[in-house]
Amino acid sequence: MSPGERPGEFDLIARYFAPMAGAGGLGLVDDAALLTPPPGCDLVLTKDALVAGVHFFPNDPPETIARKALRVNLSDLAAKGARPLGFLLGLGLPTDWREDWLATFASGLAADSALFGCPLLGGDTVRAGGPLILSITALGSMPAGTMVRRSGGKPGDLLYVSGVIGAAALGLHLIRDGDPPWSRPLSGDARAALISAFHVPQPPVALAEGIRLHASAAMDVSDGLIGDALKLAKASGTGLEIEAARVPLPLPGTPLPTLVARHRFLLDAVLTGGDDYQVLAAVPPDRASAFERAAQDIALPVTPIGRLTARGVRIHGFAGEDLSFGKPSFGHF
Amino acid sequence: MSPGERPGEFDLIARYFAPMAGAGGLGLVDDAALLTPPPGCDLVLTKDALVAGVHFFPNDPPETIARKALRVNLSDLAAKGARPLGFLLGLGLPTDWREDWLATFASGLAADSALFGCPLLGGDTVRAGGPLILSITALGSMPAGTMVRRSGGKPGDLLYVSGVIGAAALGLHLIRDGDPPWSRPLSGDARAALISAFHVPQPPVALAEGIRLHASAAMDVSDGLIGDALKLAKASGTGLEIEAARVPLPLPGTPLPTLVARHRFLLDAVLTGGDDYQVLAAVPPDRASAFERAAQDIALPVTPIGRLTARGVRIHGFAGEDLSFGKPSFGHF
Repeated sequence: MSPGERPGEFDLIARYFAPMAGAGGLGLVDDAALLTPPPGCDLVLTKDALVAGVHFFPNDPPETIARKALRVNLSDLAAKGARPLGFLLGLGLPTDWREDWLATFASGLAADSALFGCPLLGGDTVRAGGPLILSITALGSMPAGTMVRRSGGKPGDLLYVSGVIGAAALGLHLIRDGDPPWSRPLSGDARAALISAFHVPQPPVALAEGIRLHASAAMDVSDGLIGDALKLAKASGTGLEIEAARVPLPLPGTPLPTLVARHRFLLDAVLTGGDDYQVLAAVPPDRASAFERAAQDIALPVTPIGRLTARGVRIHGFAGEDLSFGKPSFGHF
Repeated sequence: MSPGERPGEFDLIARYFAPMAGAGGLGLVDDAALLTPPPGCDLVLTKDALVAGVHFFPNDPPETIARKALRVNLSDLAAKGARPLGFLLGLGLPTDWREDWLATFASGLAADSALFGCPLLGGDTVRAGGPLILSITALGSMPAGTMVRRSGGKPGDLLYVSGVIGAAALGLHLIRDGDPPWSRPLSGDARAALISAFHVPQPPVALAEGIRLHASAAMDVSDGLIGDALKLAKASGTGLEIEAARVPLPLPGTPLPTLVARHRFLLDAVLTGGDDYQVLAAVPPDRASAFERAAQDIALPVTPIGRLTARGVRIHGFAGEDLSFGKPSFGHF
C-alpha cells in the first residue's frame, strides 16, 4: 500500500475486526458466520441502527460511538432475559473516513466485545457516502420458552427500572446547549458524568437472568421512559401508573434531583428524553422481593416506580399532581 | 395523520413490514425476534449491505432494490449449504423518502420473502440523511457440523459454478453506456435479460442441499468469478485452473457468447465484473456425478469450469492462451 492510500475492505477486516471475532466468526474470512445454538435454548435477535447526527455526533470519540452501537443492542437482549452470543456489524463509512478513526473505533468495539462476552461473528463494511451509519445485529440465548415479551404484564404487576433514568437525555442537553443555566449548580464532575451517560450507556446485561426468572414483561428504555412504558402497557393490554418521585435520578447527593423536581422541563427530559438503555420490567408482586434480591446479588440497582393497572394512564408528579406529556417519547424518525 | 404527512416508524412497521413477519418476528411489536433453532442444526449468519449509487441506482424500481438486497444474502446461505430461516432488515432512508416508494419496496420484499420461505424477523428503520442504505442479516441452518466452508477444497477437486456468469456485469454496462457498439447484435429481449440480471439476481437457493452433501468448499460469486475463485483457493491452500471457454455464459443461442469470446473487454467484464450471486463450489471428482444429479433434480444448471491444483493460478482463454487480470474482482469499497 503506498503512503496515504487507504486499505481495502479485506485489509480492514483482517487488521481491525478479525482480532475480536469469536470461533463462529471463522476468522471473518468466510462468507458467513457459523453458530452452534446452545442446546435447549431459544435465540433472540435484535437490530438497532445508529446514524451520525441523529444518534450520536459525528465528532464523538470513535471508541464511544462503537461502544454505544453495541450497547444499545445489549440492552434489548437483557430485557428479553437473554445472554449475549455475538453480533454482526454493518458499517457504512462516509467518503472521508480515515484509517486512524477506524482503528480507534475498532479498539472501543473490541473492549466492549470482551467486556460483555459478545464476540464479533461477521458483518459488512461499505463506503456509503452519507453520514456514518452503524447497524448491529446482536444475538442472545436463553432456555427454550423463557423469552420475556412485552406483552406478558398483568394488572397489579410492579413496574421496575434498572439503573438511573434521564442521565443521557440531560447529558445531551449539556452537549447541545453548552452551559445552560439549570446546570450551573452542578460540579464539573457531575456534568461530565451526564455527558458520559450519553456517550456510553450502561445496559444491565447481568440482570438478564433476574428478568427471565421473575419478570412477566420487559423491554429496554430507549425512546423515553413514559413512551416506552405506554408501549409495554399497550402490548400487555393493561393501564399503568408511574410516580415521578420514585424514578431513580442520576447523581443522587448532588443538586440534580432537586433541580429535576423543581423544573418541569428537566423532568420532561428525564421521563421522555430516551437514550437510557436500561430495562423496564413488570414484576408480579409475589416475585418482587426475589427480583430485588437477584439485582442485589449482582450489585445492580432496580427501583419500583409504579404498577400496571386494569386501565388508564396516570403519571404522578413530585407533588402527587397528574402529569401529561405532549410527546411521551423521542422520535428519531 | 394529516394529508402529506409521513407516517412514523411504528406506523411504517405495522403497515408495510408486519405482514411479512414470521412467527418469530412476534408481529414486529417486541424489541427482538425469537428463534427456536431447528433441533440438531447449526446456524449460518450473513450480512450484506447495499448502498444506493454503489450497488444499485437510486432510481431503480423499489421492488427490485428490495429483492436484490435479500437475494445477495440468500446466495451466501446457499453457498454454505444452509436453507433460509429468516432475515432482519436495517433500512437507512434518505431525507426525501416517500411513502409510495416504501410501499412498493415492501411489496417486492414480501414477494421474495414468500418465494424463498425466508420470513422477516425484525430490523430497524432510521432516517439516515445520506443515500438509501440496506443492511440485511440473513439466517440459515443445516444439520450440525455440515456447513460448507471456503477452506475445505483439495487439489484435484472440480470447480463448478451454478447458473450463468457475467449477465449482471454486462447488464450494468448496458445501463451505464446506453447503447454500446458491442451490444448492437443483441435483440431488445436479450438486452433486457442482461439488465434484469443486474436488478434481480437468481441465487441458487434450492442447490443448498446438493452443495452440503457433495462440495468440499463453496462461496457465492459476488465480487467477480476470478477474484472469488482466488479467495476460495487461498482459503483452501490450493492453486487453481479455470478454462474461460467452459464458463457458462448468459443467453446461449444469441450472438452474446461469440461476442464475449472475441472481445477481451467483454470477457473481463464476465469473469471479473461480479454481481452474479451464483455459487462456486469445489467438488471432489468422486462426488461430481452425484453433485450434477442433485442439480439436475432441481433443474438448476451447474457447470465444471476448472479445478483446484496443488499450486499456481492458470486462467485459460478461449484459444487456450493464458489470461491475466489486472483487477480480478470488483471492489465497491
